[in-house]
Amino acid sequence: MLHFECDYTSGALDVVLKALIDTNSEQTSGYGEDPHCEKARAMIREKCGAADADVHFVVGGTQANTTVIAAALRPFEGVLCADTGHINVHETGAIEATGHKVLGLPNVDGKITAAQVEQAVTAQRSDASHEHIVRPAMVYISHPTELGTLYTKEELVSLSNTCKELGLTLFLDGARLGYGLAAERDIDFALLAKTCDAFTIGGTKVGLLFGEAIVLTNHSLKDCFRYHIKQRGGMLAKGRLLGVQFEALMQDDLYIDESARANGFAQQLKDAFIQSGCKLYVDTVTNQIFPILSAAQLDHLSKDYQFSFMEKIDEKHSAVRFCTSVLTKKEEVEKLLMDIHNSAGN
Amino acid sequence: MLHFECDYTSGALDVVLKALIDTNSEQTSGYGEDPHCEKARAMIREKCGAADADVHFVVGGTQANTTVIAAALRPFEGVLCADTGHINVHETGAIEATGHKVLGLPNVDGKITAAQVEQAVTAQRSDASHEHIVRPAMVYISHPTELGTLYTKEELVSLSNTCKELGLTLFLDGARLGYGLAAERDIDFALLAKTCDAFTIGGTKVGLLFGEAIVLTNHSLKDCFRYHIKQRGGMLAKGRLLGVQFEALMQDDLYIDESARANGFAQQLKDAFIQSGCKLYVDTVTNQIFPILSAAQLDHLSKDYQFSFMEKIDEKHSAVRFCTSVLTKKEEVEKLLMDIHNSAGN
Amino acid sequence: MLHFECDYTSGALDVVLKALIDTNSEQTSGYGEDPHCEKARAMIREKCGAADADVHFVVGGTQANTTVIAAALRPFEGVLCADTGHINVHETGAIEATGHKVLGLPNVDGKITAAQVEQAVTAQRSDASHEHIVRPAMVYISHPTELGTLYTKEELVSLSNTCKELGLTLFLDGARLGYGLAAERDIDFALLAKTCDAFTIGGTKVGLLFGEAIVLTNHSLKDCFRYHIKQRGGMLAKGRLLGVQFEALMQDDLYIDESARANGFAQQLKDAFIQSGCKLYVDTVTNQIFPILSAAQLDHLSKDYQFSFMEKIDEKHSAVRFCTSVLTKKEEVEKLLMDIHNSAGN
Amino acid sequence: MLHFECDYTSGALDVVLKALIDTNSEQTSGYGEDPHCEKARAMIREKCGAADADVHFVVGGTQANTTVIAAALRPFEGVLCADTGHINVHETGAIEATGHKVLGLPNVDGKITAAQVEQAVTAQRSDASHEHIVRPAMVYISHPTELGTLYTKEELVSLSNTCKELGLTLFLDGARLGYGLAAERDIDFALLAKTCDAFTIGGTKVGLLFGEAIVLTNHSLKDCFRYHIKQRGGMLAKGRLLGVQFEALMQDDLYIDESARANGFAQQLKDAFIQSGCKLYVDTVTNQIFPILSAAQLDHLSKDYQFSFMEKIDEKHSAVRFCTSVLTKKEEVEKLLMDIHNSAGN
Repeated sequence: MLHFECDYTSGALDVVLKALIDTNSEQTSGYGEDPHCEKARAMIREKCGAADADVHFVVGGTQANTTVIAAALRPFEGVLCADTGHINVHETGAIEATGHKVLGLPNVDGKITAAQVEQAVTAQRSDASHEHIVRPAMVYISHPTELGTLYTKEELVSLSNTCKELGLTLFLDGARLGYGLAAERDIDFALLAKTCDAFTIGGTKVGLLFGEAIVLTNHSLKDCFRYHIKQRGGMLAKGRLLGVQFEALMQDDLYIDESARANGFAQQLKDAFIQSGCKLYVDTVTNQIFPILSAAQLDHLSKDYQFSFMEKIDEKHSAVRFCTSVLTKKEEVEKLLMDIHNSAGN
Repeated sequence: MLHFECDYTSGALDVVLKALIDTNSEQTSGYGEDPHCEKARAMIREKCGAADADVHFVVGGTQANTTVIAAALRPFEGVLCADTGHINVHETGAIEATGHKVLGLPNVDGKITAAQVEQAVTAQRSDASHEHIVRPAMVYISHPTELGTLYTKEELVSLSNTCKELGLTLFLDGARLGYGLAAERDIDFALLAKTCDAFTIGGTKVGLLFGEAIVLTNHSLKDCFRYHIKQRGGMLAKGRLLGVQFEALMQDDLYIDESARANGFAQQLKDAFIQSGCKLYVDTVTNQIFPILSAAQLDHLSKDYQFSFMEKIDEKHSAVRFCTSVLTKKEEVEKLLMDIHNSAGN
Repeated sequence: MLHFECDYTSGALDVVLKALIDTNSEQTSGYGEDPHCEKARAMIREKCGAADADVHFVVGGTQANTTVIAAALRPFEGVLCADTGHINVHETGAIEATGHKVLGLPNVDGKITAAQVEQAVTAQRSDASHEHIVRPAMVYISHPTELGTLYTKEELVSLSNTCKELGLTLFLDGARLGYGLAAERDIDFALLAKTCDAFTIGGTKVGLLFGEAIVLTNHSLKDCFRYHIKQRGGMLAKGRLLGVQFEALMQDDLYIDESARANGFAQQLKDAFIQSGCKLYVDTVTNQIFPILSAAQLDHLSKDYQFSFMEKIDEKHSAVRFCTSVLTKKEEVEKLLMDIHNSAGN
Repeated sequence: MLHFECDYTSGALDVVLKALIDTNSEQTSGYGEDPHCEKARAMIREKCGAADADVHFVVGGTQANTTVIAAALRPFEGVLCADTGHINVHETGAIEATGHKVLGLPNVDGKITAAQVEQAVTAQRSDASHEHIVRPAMVYISHPTELGTLYTKEELVSLSNTCKELGLTLFLDGARLGYGLAAERDIDFALLAKTCDAFTIGGTKVGLLFGEAIVLTNHSLKDCFRYHIKQRGGMLAKGRLLGVQFEALMQDDLYIDESARANGFAQQLKDAFIQSGCKLYVDTVTNQIFPILSAAQLDHLSKDYQFSFMEKIDEKHSAVRFCTSVLTKKEEVEKLLMDIHNSAGN
């Protein structure tokens, strides 16, 4: 059985694993106050061209999301996001457990627009009963989105400007950031640092055993952030493990280059599905692809492959998701390409 | 200026005020453990034909809603309701502040259906990632709804059966219950006690200075409920004030009869608006009516009347809301009827 | 049975009740945005000599406490108070339900000192693991305390200075404020406004049916405070009821004068207990007194009087509490004085 | 600089690291639903002699504590623990952030007794105002405690019986469990499974990169526990990393044997300190020791060693903590022993 159901089915990139092995017997202070974390933070600040940014590491995405959101919002404030957004559908209510409402907006291909944000904020603020309505105070987007799609530079800048004008915090969830940056080169770390108040650099889905970097560029978010991390369960005792891994991942262009390779695999698979007669649920250029399979194809491919079910389209067709990752092997892709080809006409 | 913008612009029914005056110098224990509360509880149990029901009194609706919901749900569970539902839009995130997600479903005239509930629950439970998705465990409806509409007996029974089958708690918010029961006589207290696990009997909008009764029929909700009330800020020190008022309000058929009178006033107003050429935003038979006014009518009526703005329909028309209540006076209605008539053709 | 177990066993002062009756048929906007609330706010601001203070009204003390504390603190911050403090022992965890730790300090007669505050704050801030420890960011005191005792002006000023130096919010819970101000005249509204960032003026225990005024003098607490009130369940629909009552209570020196009378009754009772041979659990000059009764006295007085049990002192003695209030009648006190006298020697 | 300030200054045991390397390129499902987690769970159940126990893995202790506590308690319930308990002082209010009060009891050497629990529960339940007081519903202990001390079998059984009688959940935090089990052999996994409703088996401080196992023996805690883990941020995407590590750690008697070695090192250090003239802050037989150093010793040892400051004892003496761990090397201990010897008489 080959796994294409998500982007975290394997361990770590060799270079990351090697770094953990090489540093295993070092002795350092805990909780992220060690030379490896310092070094990794400096590397990220440099990539971002943001010497003033604060960088923190946490183990996983739920911790990153709850910590940033809880740190940014007052109790009666909520966070706007696509109704398909990760925090709205796949965090088991972790955001609400911090006391904050997630305010879903209708998505198009997983994305929301500056105009939607402005409309929502204006509606709340101009309502005679505004004090009875949760106050939108943050915009959460992910890049790539849950549907593997990407914001354009123009869309991102527009969201950023709208947030600044309205006094909202813009938070970009980059759980799969590598795949996004590799696929659309006019968005880079520096642009994220300029446009977002906070964003994350995903490690777990991009070749680390685990780990997400939180980059805070808005000064008002920085004070006492480590208290928030500790309270929300995100502070790792052997914190250097995060630093060691990010040190390895942030070397040169590794993060982007490895992601580009994974994107390439995914696009090969997408093309093969199209050639085999499939339509797409949504068209993407990143590591997630969403073909609509016939019942026969679904059966055929289910024998040897794990992939995710999205939605039943009609009696005979289902939308599914295949993911590649930086750990996907060429031979796995080749085998699947062959089997997609063989499933054609089914 | 006459107030029709909501149903709590005046004080209390005379009979209620008199009861407060008559009992003012009595000495009793606090926190709802007094003879008046006991008596009022007994009266409500009898009206409900539910000798086993627990009845509690709280000052306001936010307290009633947060207390029942927080008492019923485990941390990862959420509450299904109409996207227009009060807890979804007009509680400033009070439900989320207890840690729970409100799961909005598309409404039709402010209502949701058993089929929608079943679909939502099935979708979550059958999802491969169900543990990452908030678990629907309660259905919240209001009767009348925020749009003044009513569930039919059949709809209510159907929701109740679906909840029982799926193991969900059915909670009916009766902030305006009197107006609902008066308008649709095949739903009564006894039916609510049979179909709902918990429901409230609104006092604030139906002639009390303040006060909501919470009726718990599901045994599993009863244990330690007073701790929940205290923790959520709903326990009144001079608790007997709630008992005294409900004692007065629950006498004979006062609650229904007074509500019927208010409904009658509202229907007179609705008919007048229709005769003046207005369409309706939503058609109702309770104490809230929703005419669509021309800009000229809006201007004309705004001079002497307070009412609520709902939505701009087009450049020249706006949907608004007029409310009557058990405290609305005949002469106020007659004055408004006259002015609606005069506004016709504008 | 006469009730001396607490200060909320009766209804309202006549003048307060009359104000409610007189305004019952007025029509006003809801949620505290009405002329009576405006007037009452202005009266309080004037008494405080604080034209810039924000004044809000809520129904009860739990709402006042949770709202102020949740509005003032960031998630990882906690509130210092006496270990006997109301929020630490008698709110059913309502503060913790807003996510904040209550940090109890050892009390002396229900009070804490500036030195204790400074020590606690310094200990946390200088700890190598300070990020793992809740950050003290507020001091909560009550005046009178749960034990009926009072801060001196010097103690209050000292606490205030320490809080200002350390950047802590000073919040004074005045649930029984009238009794405090009446008993110790060198603390008045103006001094509270100068020394505290926020304080409450208790109504429920001082002659209102219900109601607490929250006075915010620290500018940083004011923004969006009404959202907090709504979210925590403290916003009354017929909000003017609070304004109407406080308008009546704040007239001239009524609040202090009525409280003084109640204090006088309590002191008569205290003296009678002392003359009957009782020692005191704690000596007070306000409306709560704490005699230590012999088992025989306890039995004797329990027949006709309700009062509160504090603690078993030894096999033969128990500390109890008797409360008077502004609604206590002279004849009730005289009857009790007689019975205390008769219980002497038991 | 050698690190003895805590038990997580290094990476992982070789056998654990090797297991991660060996499985790095395997493909498995995520979130702990993989063969390695299954195997590790089975190994733990077998060691516990508890075929029915549920075993879950989370990354860290804060997640373990918040998840178990939030899963077990109703909103108004609190958790009793030593005032020195980890959840009371070193979780940055993470427990309160789930809405629950931590109820500290005076400790003796970091421990609490069954009698204290009974007294606290009885006091709350018998109080006339019990509904205003947080209801104790869980007892949290750690073994070893924050002070390195151990419960005896008799003490543990007594706590367990008291909890069962009173209907409380007994939760044992085993962040350093290996060191405890190795030092006091009449408490073993099986006894924990019999006496506790839930307990954790610490990995982070006992040779894993990270990871805590949660063992649930009380059936009522098991339902939907994975939802709680996800909501509280404890569900690791590449969940098998936890399974792989615990598989390695639970082999044969590795967990106990390695811990015993670390305890031995600590005891050598303790004896050396005693011989050098030091008194002990608290006497322990586990991997944490607490000598009281003279100012000269403190200075001398601070040059080459990191250790923790506990408390200033007097002008010339300070209590400190030295920790060993399963990763401490013999030569590190020997160097420190020499330096302790050399510091004698200072």
